[in-house]
This record gives sequence, structure tokens and C-alpha cells, in this order.
Amino acid sequence: MSFELTILGSSSALPTSKRFPTAHLLKVDERFFLIDCGEGTQVQLRKFGFNPCRIHHIFISHLHGDHVFGLFGLLSSMGMLGRKVALNLYGPDTLEPMMKQHFGFFGSLPFEIRYHVPSPDVDLPVFEDEKLQVSPIRLKHRTTTFGYLFQEKKRALNMRKESIEKYGLGIADVVRIKQGSDHVTKTGEIISNQRLTLPPFLERSYAYISDTVFLPSISEKLKGVDLLFHEATFANKDEKLALATLHSTALQAATLAKAAGAGKLLIGHFSSRYKDYKLLVEEARTVFRDTYGVEDGDRYSLEQRRETTE
Amino acid sequence: MSFELTILGSSSALPTSKRFPTAHLLKVDERFFLIDCGEGTQVQLRKFGFNPCRIHHIFISHLHGDHVFGLFGLLSSMGMLGRKVALNLYGPDTLEPMMKQHFGFFGSLPFEIRYHVPSPDVDLPVFEDEKLQVSPIRLKHRTTTFGYLFQEKKRALNMRKESIEKYGLGIADVVRIKQGSDHVTKTGEIISNQRLTLPPFLERSYAYISDTVFLPSISEKLKGVDLLFHEATFANKDEKLALATLHSTALQAATLAKAAGAGKLLIGHFSSRYKDYKLLVEEARTVFRDTYGVEDGDRYSLEQRRETTE
Repeated sequence: MSFELTILGSSSALPTSKRFPTAHLLKVDERFFLIDCGEGTQVQLRKFGFNPCRIHHIFISHLHGDHVFGLFGLLSSMGMLGRKVALNLYGPDTLEPMMKQHFGFFGSLPFEIRYHVPSPDVDLPVFEDEKLQVSPIRLKHRTTTFGYLFQEKKRALNMRKESIEKYGLGIADVVRIKQGSDHVTKTGEIISNQRLTLPPFLERSYAYISDTVFLPSISEKLKGVDLLFHEATFANKDEKLALATLHSTALQAATLAKAAGAGKLLIGHFSSRYKDYKLLVEEARTVFRDTYGVEDGDRYSLEQRRETTE
Repeated sequence: MSFELTILGSSSALPTSKRFPTAHLLKVDERFFLIDCGEGTQVQLRKFGFNPCRIHHIFISHLHGDHVFGLFGLLSSMGMLGRKVALNLYGPDTLEPMMKQHFGFFGSLPFEIRYHVPSPDVDLPVFEDEKLQVSPIRLKHRTTTFGYLFQEKKRALNMRKESIEKYGLGIADVVRIKQGSDHVTKTGEIISNQRLTLPPFLERSYAYISDTVFLPSISEKLKGVDLLFHEATFANKDEKLALATLHSTALQAATLAKAAGAGKLLIGHFSSRYKDYKLLVEEARTVFRDTYGVEDGDRYSLEQRRETTE
């Protein structure tokens, strides 16, 4: 069961020859979730070996070009590749009229687009199924902007395979045991649930925070997140510029990661004014040691781990 | 005095990891002309070492995504880079309303855009100055489409530098001599123009033909073109598909190059169905030997040559 993030584009507004504009691809159990879609995302998908047609959900943080200009080409190519199944687009309420206006000039697609708008006031999930939920996190930037928190759902206990045969368990027994019950044998012996089951896999989570001014308050919503991406457009010496443009510094990203008790912090969206982003990583590490600066093509995998049994 | 074409993107509608969508950059005497602007053109410009802000003229063949989706990001980046000078956009009459609609959502730019629409009926130049003229060539595709012919203008004779001193020529003498006159010395000796001047540099030309169904009639307009790019989406066995989609085969491109007496034929915009484009080049070479298949990053330079003196 995979949980893998691939950085498709890591630049800020101005791409370089090595950094494409922002796009992240999250793979959860063979499903692909695209998060933002800067210019050239379809090229990056191909470069890193992903089939664009396997993406059914695209989450857009905000309608600035460096986060969204790749949608036109990606969706057009999906149509040319014969896509028939619906595509879900999540993002601010201006996304739908913008896309519809675009299709008015360039023609409609051979598949349906379903638009989903996060509530601006409450953090109700915008996507949810039996395994995963995605919640928007309202950010503060120069236009309506959302981060997204991807959380696996609490899993059931796993049966120890050998116990099924050993105790001759039926389906009804297994259902009860997976819900936490002990088992009573025909001879009246009580077999504790712990002897019959393995603890469930821990729920993994990824949060994508870009672009925003430093918002300490969102640490509550990010409590215990395993993998946190936070924009870090500026170095500490340019903190005023960060505030003026409603962006964050690397140090602020680290401060948030620490407050949230995150497992690992990824920073990116570096301003092209910095020749080397190592300074930004160093600044962040003074506050949060497990910080990494991302580059196009980087992959971060979260392994499946079980709750430790006492 | 340079005349150099760089292929920024050579794919057809579906880009691959090695081929970006269509964009060509023509450099004439330190001026840069961008021709079509597929997604990722700004990234390709940087990759191949060009400053996007040095481009003041962009020629769009038609409003299909693979020829135009890079405009949004390129123009946005020009704005962020502090561009103040006007940018000229040439293309079908739908280009201006499409761009204006786009800016309605993403905000206007800090520089003026001047739109120029080729006449659909006559081939009046859309750009002209003392050195160069650019003429549209009406093509036949699924939407209004123009090719563009870049032609250097007839140059004046060049003075042989040593003759100025030798005969004590004044400015008025030089002007007359450069217009073709002989020179009469104070002693009445007639110095022939050929002894005083070098023949002018030959006018170089480049034609960009994409996308179109095979149009033999345009060979007249392309007579003697030095460098001809012609789309070659399909191999000969798919000629019917070419006709159905209003595209051309490599063989048809070569037939046109031969009829026009072109110097060199470049083909590209290959359908991604062909794993190897060598077949298409081979088919073209059966009719026109000087055919080359283009790849992203290819550069083709036309040297300055003088008319040969008899």
C-alpha cells in the first residue's frame, strides 16, 4: 500500500531550466492525486514515468498562473489520449468559470469535469472515501487560496492468518474479532483479541501548504502530520518581503512544522533570487531538524507501520 | 549579422518527455522573433540560453493549444521580470479576445500588447522594417491558420573600404556609388562601380508552415526560400489520416519544398504514434534530399553570402 509524493515542479513564480512551476503528485494505494498544475506538468508527468490518464482528482490551491497554467495542456492531452471517465477538479470558486471560459475558445473535452469548491469557512473534507479524506486548509495569500491535508482513515485490525485455521473461525467470528472482540472457543476458552489480530497500519498523512503568509494558527489542523510541504519563498533576511507579498520564509515554515509536531518538513517554491537554496534549508533546520529542500523529481515515500503493541 | 533558427519545441499535439509542443525562435541581426508558443516555451527559452524579455514579436499560427498554451506563462514571466516595452502579437483575430479574456481572470500585465491580425485574403506583410519583412501565408487547417515567411530585404552594395581613401570619396560620392553609380575622378577617369563596391549580402529567408493539409499552391509564395519548415505529422501510409485531420505527410512537405526550390527542408510536428521519425525523413528524402527532422534544441544558421560576381 503505497503513500508516495513526487515533486513534479518546485519553482516559485519564475521557472528556471531546472525547476518547473508547482505541481505535486501523491500516490495513495495506486491512486494518483495531482496537487496544483503549473505550466509543463504534463511534460513532467511523462518525464517521471506517470500516465496522466490515471489521475482522476486534481486539487488547485489558487488561481495564480504558476499553480494552474498546466491544466489547459494536461486536460487537452487527456482528451486526445481518449479519456472518457470524469475528472474531479477541486479549487476556489473562480476555477470553474475560468476553465469554462477557456473551453469556450479551445473547445470542450470528451470527458466530464466535476468541480468541487471547498467551503471558505469550515474545513469539511472535499474528498472522502473509505480509505482517504482530503480536507482544505484556508490560507492567506493575494487571492483565495487553499492548502490540502491528505489523511488515511483509521484502519481495521488485521487478522493473524494462522488464527483463522487454528480456531476454525467463520466469517461472523472474523468480523467481530476485527472490531476488537476476543474469541470464545466451543470449549469456553477465551482467546484474547491481541492473540488473534495484528494492530492496524497507522494512518499516514500529507499536507500541502502553498502559497501563504505565515499562519501559526493552522498548526492545530496539521497536528501530527507525517509529511508537511510548506512554501518557503524567502530567506529570513527577506522576511518583510515575505509579509508584503503574503509568502513565508523557510524559518516560518519550520516554526509551523515544529508547532504541528510534523514528522518531516519539505520546503520549496524558493524565489529565483537565491542561487542556492541550501541557506533556506539551514535556516529552517535551526528550528526543525527534519527539513528538506525539494527539487523536481524528488520522491518521498511513507512506509506502512503498525501501531506498536505494548 | 545572424540569421539563426532554434527549435524550442518539435512535438505534435501530444508532447513527450523529449519533445515540447511547437515553438521556434528566429534570431535575425540580434533581434528575436518567436513563432508559436506551445506549453513550456519559457522553460525551453531558459534551457537553451535565451532571455525571454528580448522577444518583442510573437507570431501565432493558430489557436490550438499545442501552439499557444505557453503564451500565458511566458507573458506572465515577462511581467514579473519587469518588462515595460510593448510586445507585438501576430495571429488570427480570435487571439486578442482570447488573451483579453485570460487577463480578465489572471490580471493585466505591466506592458502593452499590440495585436496584429493578418488579412485573410491578401498576403500583405504583418511586420516590416528596413531590414526584414514577415508575410503571412494562409494555410488550411481545422481553424484559421497562418504560416509566416521571414525575408531579409534587398541590401545596398557595400563599399570596398580601401576605395574611399584611394579616391578621396566624400559622403555624397559614397551614397551615389552604393546606389550603383560609377565614379568619375577629378582627372576625368571613370572608376567602375564593381571596383569600388562589394556585391550586397544575399537576402536570407525562413518559412514556417504549420499546421496544414497539403497545399501545393503555396509553393509560388515560397519560391527560393532558403530554409523551409513544414509540418510532417504523418508517414505516407497514413496519408488518409493526414487529409482527414488536415495535416501533411513528410512526402507532401518534400513535394512542396521541391516545387518551391527551397534550400533546405526541416520537418517536425511528428505524430507521437511514430517511435522513430527516421522513416518520415527517409520518405521525404526520396523527393527532396536536403531534408532534416528537427529535435528540441536544434539550431540552423544561414551564413551571410554575397552575390557571386561574374
